[in-house]
Amino acid sequence: MMADTGQATSNGNGASGADAPAGLAGVVVARTRLGDVRGLEGCYQYRHYDAIELSRHRTLEDVWHLLFRGHLPDRAERDAFRRQVAGYRALPADLVPFLRTLAATDPFDPLTALRTAISFVAQRSGFRSWLDVPPDQLYENALQLSAQTPVLIAALYRLHRGLEPVAADPALPAAASYLYLLSGEHPDPQRVWALERYLISTIDHGFNPSTFTARVITSTGADLGAAVTGAIGALSGPLHGGAPSRVLEMLDDIGSPDRAEAWARAAVGRGDRIMGFGHRVYKGKDPRSALMREVASTLGGSTAEFAMAVEDTIVRVLAEEKPGRALNANVEFYAGVVMDACGIPRELFTPTFASSRVIGWCSHVLEQVSGNRLIRPAARYDGEAPPQPVPAAD
Amino acid sequence: MMADTGQATSNGNGASGADAPAGLAGVVVARTRLGDVRGLEGCYQYRHYDAIELSRHRTLEDVWHLLFRGHLPDRAERDAFRRQVAGYRALPADLVPFLRTLAATDPFDPLTALRTAISFVAQRSGFRSWLDVPPDQLYENALQLSAQTPVLIAALYRLHRGLEPVAADPALPAAASYLYLLSGEHPDPQRVWALERYLISTIDHGFNPSTFTARVITSTGADLGAAVTGAIGALSGPLHGGAPSRVLEMLDDIGSPDRAEAWARAAVGRGDRIMGFGHRVYKGKDPRSALMREVASTLGGSTAEFAMAVEDTIVRVLAEEKPGRALNANVEFYAGVVMDACGIPRELFTPTFASSRVIGWCSHVLEQVSGNRLIRPAARYDGEAPPQPVPAAD
Repeated sequence: MMADTGQATSNGNGASGADAPAGLAGVVVARTRLGDVRGLEGCYQYRHYDAIELSRHRTLEDVWHLLFRGHLPDRAERDAFRRQVAGYRALPADLVPFLRTLAATDPFDPLTALRTAISFVAQRSGFRSWLDVPPDQLYENALQLSAQTPVLIAALYRLHRGLEPVAADPALPAAASYLYLLSGEHPDPQRVWALERYLISTIDHGFNPSTFTARVITSTGADLGAAVTGAIGALSGPLHGGAPSRVLEMLDDIGSPDRAEAWARAAVGRGDRIMGFGHRVYKGKDPRSALMREVASTLGGSTAEFAMAVEDTIVRVLAEEKPGRALNANVEFYAGVVMDACGIPRELFTPTFASSRVIGWCSHVLEQVSGNRLIRPAARYDGEAPPQPVPAAD
Repeated sequence: MMADTGQATSNGNGASGADAPAGLAGVVVARTRLGDVRGLEGCYQYRHYDAIELSRHRTLEDVWHLLFRGHLPDRAERDAFRRQVAGYRALPADLVPFLRTLAATDPFDPLTALRTAISFVAQRSGFRSWLDVPPDQLYENALQLSAQTPVLIAALYRLHRGLEPVAADPALPAAASYLYLLSGEHPDPQRVWALERYLISTIDHGFNPSTFTARVITSTGADLGAAVTGAIGALSGPLHGGAPSRVLEMLDDIGSPDRAEAWARAAVGRGDRIMGFGHRVYKGKDPRSALMREVASTLGGSTAEFAMAVEDTIVRVLAEEKPGRALNANVEFYAGVVMDACGIPRELFTPTFASSRVIGWCSHVLEQVSGNRLIRPAARYDGEAPPQPVPAAD
């Protein structure tokens, strides 16, 4: 299992050696220069910078440039990059009827509609196998899809509510543009600031299932649209991208800070999983959660105050009821609170997550194609043996 | 790396232990009862039957039932299953304008259009996370998508050529139905026989990238539409599903049997990879290739004769030029020849492959949800260290 022979050497779906841990937990499937997640140290990186520091001190476009190009932009690069991504924001007029169909289809789920829209945009833009195009064309495809994803989300949402899409304002930075495209109003600068911190901090985070999906699909030589469409599908699963709105539903259910303790003890007593707490890798604080708490606190408002009180209570109850587990709030706990305070409707929480994570997916696609190797694991047959003769049909 | 602790225990994107072989080659990521690939023995199974025997002696619906339900059907089960899958074949009238848009969009690629169509069909059919629906609903979704995939391919193809979709004939078995929906004419029984052998033999084959993609996406709790959309994307990569038409292009290039030897020696001399030869797992004969050669031979025709002569020549040249490699024709070599002889246009070769493989994908989705574990591997950071302080923007 350790040796890279490049060939399967035995039976069983090409399996050799021992079984990998369930879910491939901890199995290193690739090397990456895009980032690192340091669970024990409670931090994560984008390239060779601390991701939280980047989230605090840089713009979304700066970090996007860092991941796509390998370095933070200087002034001239920043201006050029901003113009380039803003140039992809105009929605082609002949795409609107297609989006209108998706938005008018019942049932409507914005992430599912986005999946279909991205797949179609890739077709009509002529995306092709990266094996068949020059490298700069794949880079252009990546820039286009990551720039257009928030535009598509906003257009689908507005159309579904019977509103026309808002024409993009190319002068706006990316985070402000997203809020503008949703509401049609120039957004409050503090909300832009808060949303930008959320978006930057969620661009990338190790080989999560959607990122891994994008790399598996890319490894076959498929076009970028195939990779991003697949990644959106993976993100739509509640075990991956589907939880931020559930935290707000939990806060609704708790109702008021004084009810948090009884609610939490009852939930633990029933054996329920409490949404927004605990993390696979971070055993101490999730650094994204700490940043989002700060952001929520700066924004203020009753939901933020309430959420902070609930977090403190739940952490205390969990420490008492599940000693030794060190269960802390994860990124999902405050993500919904911050997005809510920024005026983003609950049904767009996961699509908004997709609007930043698509930058990460595209970065991984660009990295995967350099030194590509088809990703094709093995399975072990666990059924009846030996093979039986096929009976004649009766 | 071997121990399943259920948790990552160290740094580096949750990585622990040594790196897995590149591309996860030979790494056992799951146990399956759906099938086995026995490379050294030159055979593969669907459940506990030899897949080639099934392909010879059973109908597509029988094998579909075997994979979905765990056993070959008796007479009553067969009749019920046939009626059930045929019942999904009618194309809803209000879906046709959507397909018309996809078919009329330039550039048109039928597999890309199918990706978008499947994504949309799943939305409008109300597919939801399998975590949120009863198990029999996921089963119904699987039956629907696998039954409708060939219908969608045929409709998209006809619409693209300016023809209206053909209304399904529910009395036809699946393989005959596909040819009927493509041409609008009741197909020649020998072509149906040949196509059915091809379709059965390509339903499943280990943890290939599209099947693995479907399982990764499903592991997040995503709906079946997300899994199949992602799988189609993976299949669209030339390194996975994209080769059958290239073999016919190679035969065109060779031109006549007497030119095969010179052509093959020149290709080897240039270091070119010869399409349709060699296999990752099968070091002897690819059992699917042997079956497809028989089928092509039975169908007869000049292309089949030509292909068999070319195969014999290329195998001989490769044995001389690359001794010890034992390079034989793989399934792709005859797949295109058989599909061509069945009247399937070249641009539909990979979509036709998708029309049988979708049964495999759906079978794997149904298996994945029983005892699901999120599939989330790790990556090793390979960039500059230690992390640098974030410079102020200039």
